[in-house]
Amino acid sequence: MTVRAAIEDLLSEYAEAIDDGALEQWPSFFTAGGEYQIITRESYEAGLPIGIMFCDSRGMMEDRVQALRTANIYEPHAYRHLLGRPGFRRDDDGYAVRSNFCVYRIAQDGDTVVFATGRYLDRIVEDGGALRFRSRRVVLDSRRVDILLVLPL
Amino acid sequence: MTVRAAIEDLLSEYAEAIDDGALEQWPSFFTAGGEYQIITRESYEAGLPIGIMFCDSRGMMEDRVQALRTANIYEPHAYRHLLGRPGFRRDDDGYAVRSNFCVYRIAQDGDTVVFATGRYLDRIVEDGGALRFRSRRVVLDSRRVDILLVLPL
Amino acid sequence: MTVRAAIEDLLSEYAEAIDDGALEQWPSFFTAGGEYQIITRESYEAGLPIGIMFCDSRGMMEDRVQALRTANIYEPHAYRHLLGRPGFRRDDDGYAVRSNFCVYRIAQDGDTVVFATGRYLDRIVEDGGALRFRSRRVVLDSRRVDILLVLPL
Repeated sequence: MTVRAAIEDLLSEYAEAIDDGALEQWPSFFTAGGEYQIITRESYEAGLPIGIMFCDSRGMMEDRVQALRTANIYEPHAYRHLLGRPGFRRDDDGYAVRSNFCVYRIAQDGDTVVFATGRYLDRIVEDGGALRFRSRRVVLDSRRVDILLVLPL
Repeated sequence: MTVRAAIEDLLSEYAEAIDDGALEQWPSFFTAGGEYQIITRESYEAGLPIGIMFCDSRGMMEDRVQALRTANIYEPHAYRHLLGRPGFRRDDDGYAVRSNFCVYRIAQDGDTVVFATGRYLDRIVEDGGALRFRSRRVVLDSRRVDILLVLPL
Repeated sequence: MTVRAAIEDLLSEYAEAIDDGALEQWPSFFTAGGEYQIITRESYEAGLPIGIMFCDSRGMMEDRVQALRTANIYEPHAYRHLLGRPGFRRDDDGYAVRSNFCVYRIAQDGDTVVFATGRYLDRIVEDGGALRFRSRRVVLDSRRVDILLVLPL
């Protein structure tokens, strides 16, 4: 398998797990100390460190999933991801990868909207024989963040 | 050509034919006894056998196309498909393939909406030197099915 | 690198440049005498020569970018492209390439809409060691063209 195919598999399997509602799989796409951040393009380009969501370990992601499963205070909804072809370059520290995305949100009554568009900016490394995210930054195009943003993107 | 490229060609040429309005080509993407089904995610996950549309042979698909061409009772509209990268595995019976999709519907007055999102769950086999669908199941994310659903997806 | 990969890189880097707001890069994706046209599907299929936007040289594109930067009369907005897998064939004159697209427009207040769907119909050639567009025709599915159409697609 080529490096491109391995990276594309990781990106699409990540999206598939979330779209399928298999949230428990979400942390497993990261290294143990992996970082996950959702940030608006505006904050990102201004160099502001604080985003909308931040996790700095797999354990923190697992806590978040458990909270979502337990509290269950959000209106049930599902996502559907569409991903663009990733661009990437290899360096001494794995792969720097960027890709476009659009996420649709399907509410329980069936209403479907474009929920978010943007870019993934990823640092992908080999970890125990598989590719994983050491960091995944979700840069949202829109400054208007829906209050329902509770599932990872 | 790799297996992946051959599968991706089939998926994108199928979508292109529908988007181009070349409905007469639609049955030719299936084996003679091929099955086509549109079903909601809710029904699919509940194991309900009945979907929104079902054809169990190429002949039945041809009848459907002819009915669409003759009756012509629907508001003219076109589709535009965007497809995600497929995942697939080979077994003794060809290829089990899944892929994400989003279909936009463009009405005659130009109004464009997200018409449907979901997954294709396909069984693809070699048939007379080409890859074809032995079965194609279109699993819609939304339970709300538009009354205009007359073109295949 | 395969021909497919080189073509897909060109298509995605073009989109990325526009989405990033790096409009000054836009003309560099074309040959010096390259053509760029935006046209509705209706006009295209009727064989009407006149589209919504037409440039017949890199210089004309550079003028257009400068006008956009200087005049700045349009409401600030950004695009996000999602592209389908391209189909292509080689002939004596380079590559004839078609691909589906959806472009989202993100307004400054964050409002995100499906701005345009359609097909790119491209003539891609080798030019000074790189692949470039000798012509790029953007065929819009919708006849309803938004008055804000000022950025290239």
